[in-house]
Amino acid sequence: MSPRKSDSREKMLRSTTALLREYGASATSIDRVLAHSGAPRGSVYHHFPGGRTQLIEEAVVLAGDFMAGVIESAVQADDPAAAINEFFTVWRDRLAESAFRRGCPIVAVAVETNDEAPHLARTAGAVFAGWQEAFAALFRRHGLPEERSRRLAALVVAAEEGAVVMGRAQQSTEPIEAVAAEIHDLLVHALSGRPQAES
Amino acid sequence: MSPRKSDSREKMLRSTTALLREYGASATSIDRVLAHSGAPRGSVYHHFPGGRTQLIEEAVVLAGDFMAGVIESAVQADDPAAAINEFFTVWRDRLAESAFRRGCPIVAVAVETNDEAPHLARTAGAVFAGWQEAFAALFRRHGLPEERSRRLAALVVAAEEGAVVMGRAQQSTEPIEAVAAEIHDLLVHALSGRPQAES
Repeated sequence: MSPRKSDSREKMLRSTTALLREYGASATSIDRVLAHSGAPRGSVYHHFPGGRTQLIEEAVVLAGDFMAGVIESAVQADDPAAAINEFFTVWRDRLAESAFRRGCPIVAVAVETNDEAPHLARTAGAVFAGWQEAFAALFRRHGLPEERSRRLAALVVAAEEGAVVMGRAQQSTEPIEAVAAEIHDLLVHALSGRPQAES
Repeated sequence: MSPRKSDSREKMLRSTTALLREYGASATSIDRVLAHSGAPRGSVYHHFPGGRTQLIEEAVVLAGDFMAGVIESAVQADDPAAAINEFFTVWRDRLAESAFRRGCPIVAVAVETNDEAPHLARTAGAVFAGWQEAFAALFRRHGLPEERSRRLAALVVAAEEGAVVMGRAQQSTEPIEAVAAEIHDLLVHALSGRPQAES
C-alpha cells in the first residue's frame, strides 16, 4: 500500500470520528467524510469495502482503543482516585477545547438504532465494557469485591458519558466537575479500610 | 381548533419523540414523522410553522416536562433514596420494555450540534437543569448544603443518562441497576447524620 493511500485511509477515519462527535451517526455520510477529509471519492470503497458502516465501526473501535489507552496509562500509577481524576479531566478538557461542540463518538453511535447494521451498537457496547473492565480491575486490585468493583466502574463510565452530554447542552464544564468530585469522594470512602493491593 | 386537528398535532409530537428516542435527531425528518404518525402532510406547517425544528423543540420540552412530573411525584414522598430508586426504575423499565431500542429524546438532541438551530441544544440543557434542580431541592430539604446538593443532583442525572446509553448498546439493564445501587448507597451515606428537614 502506498503511503498516500494509507494516508487517506487514516484521514477518512479521523474525519469520521470528528463528525460522529459533533453531528452524530446519521449525519456522518460518506459525502461529508470526503468533504471533511479531502480524500478522493474513489478511495472510499478501496479502503472501506463495507462503506459507511465499516467507516463508522472502525472509527468507534479506534476511538474506543484510544480512550482505553488513556485509562490504561491513568491506571498504571495504581492510584484509583488519581486515575478517575485523570479520566474526567481528559473529558472536561476535550469538551471545553471544542467550545462544547464535540462529545463522545461511542455515544453518538449508541443512541441511534441502526436496523441495517445492528452490530454497530454492539461494537459501542463492547467499547464501554472494555473501559468498565479496566476500572473494575483497578478497584479489585485495591481490595474491593468483584461485584462492587463492577458497579463502581459502571458508575464511572456512565457518569462521565452523561455529564459530557449535559455539559455540551449546557455549554458548561460544571456537570463533569460535579460528577468527578462526587465519584472521587465515593471512591476514597469505598477504599478506606479495605485491604490494599498486594504488590 | 377542531378536535381532529389538535389530534394530529399531538400525534406528530408523539411520533417525533418516539423517533428521537429510537433513531436520533438527524433521522427525525418531517417525512418520517408523517409516516409514523399518519398525520396529513398539509397539517405540518399549520401546526408547526417553524417546521422540523419546532417539532423537535416542542417534543423535547414535552418529554422533559413529563419526566419532571415523574421526578416531582417521586420527590413528593420526601424520601430521597426512594425518589432516586423510582427515577432509575422508570428508566430501566423503559429500556427493557422497548427491547433496548429507545433511549432519551433529550440526549438525542444534545449529542448533535445543529448549526442552524443552536437553541435546540440549549433547550435540552434547560431540561437537564430542571431535573437537576428538582433533585437538588430535595437534597437541600434533607439538610445537605447547597453545593453538595447540586453536585449530587448532577451525578443522579448524568449517571442515569449515561447508563441508559450504555444499557442500550449492551442490551442490558445492568448498567442502570449498577448506578442506581451505587447512588442509593452514596445518598444514604450523605444523608446519615445530617439534620433532617423541618416539617
